[in-house]
Amino acid sequence: MPRWEPDGRGRLEAAAMELYSERGYEMTTVAEIAERAGLTERTFFRHFADKREVLFGRASRLEEFLAERVIAAAPEVGPLDAIVAALVEAGPPLGEMYDSAVRRRAVVASSPELQERERTKLANLTAALRTALLVRDIAPSRASLAAEAGVAIFKVGFEQWIEQGNRSPLQTYFTMQYAELKALAGGPDLSAARSPSQV
Amino acid sequence: MPRWEPDGRGRLEAAAMELYSERGYEMTTVAEIAERAGLTERTFFRHFADKREVLFGRASRLEEFLAERVIAAAPEVGPLDAIVAALVEAGPPLGEMYDSAVRRRAVVASSPELQERERTKLANLTAALRTALLVRDIAPSRASLAAEAGVAIFKVGFEQWIEQGNRSPLQTYFTMQYAELKALAGGPDLSAARSPSQV
Repeated sequence: MPRWEPDGRGRLEAAAMELYSERGYEMTTVAEIAERAGLTERTFFRHFADKREVLFGRASRLEEFLAERVIAAAPEVGPLDAIVAALVEAGPPLGEMYDSAVRRRAVVASSPELQERERTKLANLTAALRTALLVRDIAPSRASLAAEAGVAIFKVGFEQWIEQGNRSPLQTYFTMQYAELKALAGGPDLSAARSPSQV
Repeated sequence: MPRWEPDGRGRLEAAAMELYSERGYEMTTVAEIAERAGLTERTFFRHFADKREVLFGRASRLEEFLAERVIAAAPEVGPLDAIVAALVEAGPPLGEMYDSAVRRRAVVASSPELQERERTKLANLTAALRTALLVRDIAPSRASLAAEAGVAIFKVGFEQWIEQGNRSPLQTYFTMQYAELKALAGGPDLSAARSPSQV
């Protein structure tokens, strides 16, 4: 993992990813991860609560990165625009890690408990973006919906980026998904005009 | 729980909810739930895999209800319009259960493992809506985003309905959140015009 924390923490993350890919997540122990990284188990637990967390170190860094930028956006920028602008800014550093993102995704897909943790992390990201919008004095319900929509753009854009093999820069997928959301939500308000019995 | 499966299954759901509210989710056993419902533990396990699942019986019924309606929507109805129309139709039957929804929400909020299961159920709902849209020949990435956006509208609308104490019918909250999403995504496409370095 060049250019991303070449310290103990980064070495543990790289070692865990290698082992999870080689022999599977279930079959890998913390002792083996530490050994591969040339560190002790004790050091592992200084950085990560468990074998799952080592896959999600980036999640909290991303959360912080995005929340800071949403808070710092110019006052006239709308809530969802602010989130998408932050995602676009996160694109280049995240995009550098395409290979490890592909491997990571395969590992997460292999384990229901990792998928569960992934959903928890995305829920944390949603909460952090919501809080950032509250700091900007956005109304709570609006902040919730904008945060949910922003995370939807992140998830679907990231997924497409992986599926299409890094064909375009990651940030392009975020802006494309935002354009897609505009198209989806852009039609006439059919639902409001229709009564339940007519549907 | 009047009018909602007054059979063994429904009685177990009602008994579990009562006990979880009275003495807490952690402190309640399956044996106690069965006893309160006047049934055996064996019957409990014929209906539910575990103590968690009993809180999520409605989730799969809702999933089915919405997916069926999305598939059956008229061909000219857009993907997100179809989801919101289905939500609007689900509003009245779901809305009848306001009191139990309030109690259920408090129980779920009390336990990280229940919150985790709730996220899994919402992920399942998203997947079911996505599949329903694929049946309608919507492109996969568009179907993913529309399903995510639809579930965001459901979550935030439902939450607001509870918080505002059932002030308006549940379906009104869904259409309000859809209108809110249109407003959020309706501005000029700022993010696309802005390069990462300018943000």
